Amino acid sequence: MAEYIAPLQRLIEEFRRLPGVGAKTAARYAFATLNLSDEEAARFADAINGVKRDVFKCPVCFGLSASAEGCEICKNPSRDPSVICVVESPKDVMVMERVRGYRGLYHVLGGSLSPLDNITPDDLTVKELVSRIETGEVGEIIIATNPTPSGDTTAAYLARILEPYGVTVSRLAYGIPVGGDIEYADEVTLYRAMEGRRSYN
Amino acid sequence: MAEYIAPLQRLIEEFRRLPGVGAKTAARYAFATLNLSDEEAARFADAINGVKRDVFKCPVCFGLSASAEGCEICKNPSRDPSVICVVESPKDVMVMERVRGYRGLYHVLGGSLSPLDNITPDDLTVKELVSRIETGEVGEIIIATNPTPSGDTTAAYLARILEPYGVTVSRLAYGIPVGGDIEYADEVTLYRAMEGRRSYN
Repeated sequence: MAEYIAPLQRLIEEFRRLPGVGAKTAARYAFATLNLSDEEAARFADAINGVKRDVFKCPVCFGLSASAEGCEICKNPSRDPSVICVVESPKDVMVMERVRGYRGLYHVLGGSLSPLDNITPDDLTVKELVSRIETGEVGEIIIATNPTPSGDTTAAYLARILEPYGVTVSRLAYGIPVGGDIEYADEVTLYRAMEGRRSYN
Repeated sequence: MAEYIAPLQRLIEEFRRLPGVGAKTAARYAFATLNLSDEEAARFADAINGVKRDVFKCPVCFGLSASAEGCEICKNPSRDPSVICVVESPKDVMVMERVRGYRGLYHVLGGSLSPLDNITPDDLTVKELVSRIETGEVGEIIIATNPTPSGDTTAAYLARILEPYGVTVSRLAYGIPVGGDIEYADEVTLYRAMEGRRSYN
């Protein structure tokens, strides 16, 4: 006999797919879901479908967007199109946005270079970043990859291939704890890192 | 500007309703959901709807059931109908089922007596428990309410009102850590508690 009845067991297994969720936590979530009203559960389920249905990739910066035409940041005329902050993941855009002072645009690489995992520049949006720079509108690139070995490799690679374009290429200062993830950095640390960015050229 | 785009923010708020989930964990879950394939997300959403659609309350024991007619335990002819284990919540039935030795039936009260929260015997399935005993089929009642003040009150109340029916009424031994929740007790402790149950009469 299964420990839980089938529909519950099924939901528990779905919750277990979430990061850091084990069997007991998943069971706790499943019972909490069971205790929601029908309307609340339907809303929860719809929010999951909604995130797949209503979230698009911005065709310019590859960040998350509420429409297929482009994201709010790229479309905002008060943002400075001459500065592009390059990040690894869409989540990092939102993290960087918490630093109120930044008014430039973004570019989401979609990962970082990792020869061991077979991730090459072709797997990232490097070509698209170069195209944006080739328009001549961009004067500065701020690299905000994670301070990890693969983030470092990516930053060094970008600095090298962007050299011929005559744009200022800088990287976030090591205010971010080394080996960490920018997602968990606090706003002050992020601001310091932005202020103390070092130029590659 | 909201920190996240609307569909993500909405999902984050749904995840925050789960027990023990704060803003960062909810955001982590939402991004993990976003990274699921369309099929996986649809399956996740459907599992949530499924738990509301396909889980019923057993009309006999008030435990969870995969059909409206009655649960697998009540319908199982090899279970001993002369013993009823009384628990607070449907989840507790599943916890007790891990104790392989128990072959009797269950009765889910749907909570515990708590005058401060205005929970009286009428809010629980006490009347239905008495009806089951009145059939004369039941010889023993094992009270497995939580070892908390309200669980203790409920156990004492049940022992008193069941006295006239001439059934043996016992309660799980205090092998369960006092002030805890039976949900988190390990199988061995639960088994000891079942073995060392003390009779009220």
